[in-house]
Amino acid sequence: MTGEPEFRKLVVFGVGLIGGSFALGLKAAGQIEEIVGFGRSLASLTQALELGVIDRVGANAGQEVADADLVLIATPVAQMPEIMARIAPYLGPQALVTDGGSTKSDVVAAARAAFGAKAGQFVPAHPIAGAENSGAAAARADLYCGKKVVLTPLAENTVLDVARVRSAWEWCGAQIHELTPAEHDRVFAAVSHLPHLLSFALVHDIAVRDNRELFFSFAASGFRDFTRIAASHPEMWRDICLANRVALLDELDRYRAQLDELRDALQRGDGAQLEATFDVARTARRAWASDKP
Amino acid sequence: MTGEPEFRKLVVFGVGLIGGSFALGLKAAGQIEEIVGFGRSLASLTQALELGVIDRVGANAGQEVADADLVLIATPVAQMPEIMARIAPYLGPQALVTDGGSTKSDVVAAARAAFGAKAGQFVPAHPIAGAENSGAAAARADLYCGKKVVLTPLAENTVLDVARVRSAWEWCGAQIHELTPAEHDRVFAAVSHLPHLLSFALVHDIAVRDNRELFFSFAASGFRDFTRIAASHPEMWRDICLANRVALLDELDRYRAQLDELRDALQRGDGAQLEATFDVARTARRAWASDKP
Repeated sequence: MTGEPEFRKLVVFGVGLIGGSFALGLKAAGQIEEIVGFGRSLASLTQALELGVIDRVGANAGQEVADADLVLIATPVAQMPEIMARIAPYLGPQALVTDGGSTKSDVVAAARAAFGAKAGQFVPAHPIAGAENSGAAAARADLYCGKKVVLTPLAENTVLDVARVRSAWEWCGAQIHELTPAEHDRVFAAVSHLPHLLSFALVHDIAVRDNRELFFSFAASGFRDFTRIAASHPEMWRDICLANRVALLDELDRYRAQLDELRDALQRGDGAQLEATFDVARTARRAWASDKP
Repeated sequence: MTGEPEFRKLVVFGVGLIGGSFALGLKAAGQIEEIVGFGRSLASLTQALELGVIDRVGANAGQEVADADLVLIATPVAQMPEIMARIAPYLGPQALVTDGGSTKSDVVAAARAAFGAKAGQFVPAHPIAGAENSGAAAARADLYCGKKVVLTPLAENTVLDVARVRSAWEWCGAQIHELTPAEHDRVFAAVSHLPHLLSFALVHDIAVRDNRELFFSFAASGFRDFTRIAASHPEMWRDICLANRVALLDELDRYRAQLDELRDALQRGDGAQLEATFDVARTARRAWASDKP
């Protein structure tokens, strides 16, 4: 907390929960001098300014990134290519860019396309932090404390640049993990994106029936837990599914094959196979839960 | 609470959470004089006796049901046919039988086969009460307070007999609903049995991979909620799946068709269809949650 801040100027695109908490975290750690914010609505930027999440609202993105040390792109993934293309020509050689996107292969492809020879300045990141609330008002300096942030470094990155971006997330309190973009997308397709798709599908399947009220009236705690994520934001999950389409299709096909096997076991009354499958699942689920802090 | 108890003698098969709580509920309401328990292990019967859940351990089932007013079969569904066959010849004409099974078409078929001309004395029930804990020690007089109990009366039942069994569950505090056995099984296949199957399948699908640790290490709160029911009891869920096989296969096929549609939408990048499906689900899930007490 003493001495010179590690970074001088941060430019944040998207001053919501993810971007705002990164700004507040670095500020609380005394590791940043100035924070400039860009966003889609003047209202959210004004709010971020009033809450002290940012120091200034930016006017000219090219001008602001020219002398920035750090740029965080914390918008929905679908908006990132346009922002990258806008800032690429002006990005100073000292500037490091990171992001908060929940998919990585597509963001990396967009970054390579936009940044070209400057792609080495982009160190992709995915902070795993809850999103029950959103917007600058939900941002907190300690959002990332003890949370995982996955970096998916590029072959073009220097070791020093990866270390500097890692350091920025660590100042926010995050635990850093490294995966390749493909590994990242496969893992999150399986443990996050697919469960969301399956939960949405179950509720939709019931909701479109004429006698849905009858069904919903007997749904209990198992249904409640299984479908909690079906109350997630439709546009956001549409974008995540599309952004991670390739890995999600692979995982979905794998899952459908698994369901087909269970269907066959059920059809032929093979209780031993059903029980064996359930037992492997229960053992793994319990081990997972007991590993959690 | 004053005056004569509504029932004189209750015989309970299975003195665990479901059977024990029914016994304690009727006793607390002052609506039963004597409770006789049967069970598979002497240890659980002794515990039930010590806890005051039952007044006596039964020795001869035929003898006990001959002069019983009420018989509750609260064992796993797979054990019910044998118990029904054992008591059928001795069941007195005054005795009403109900059960606590979570599937109904199969229980009804077993009852018709076992009871024959006495099938009208059987009024099937499914109490919707949590089962995080089990055994006589978990039994509580108020387990059914405010909980739903579904009765699935038979064409053979008299209106009076249905009313008496309804009354017994109501003395325990339950809210009574009536469905046909087929309706019951269809509803619970959709809102309970299928979600369990899907959750078991997802965890199994990850657990059998060589690199499962990598996947589990990034699983977060969405995964936690979706997979909570995958920690359920494998044998119990094997039996429920087999007992409700026909309805569950129907629901599973319906769900697989729904997944196929989502897969096609994802494959062709049809964001509008994905969003529309997710939106219907979210709206329905939120309406359901806001209806809950």
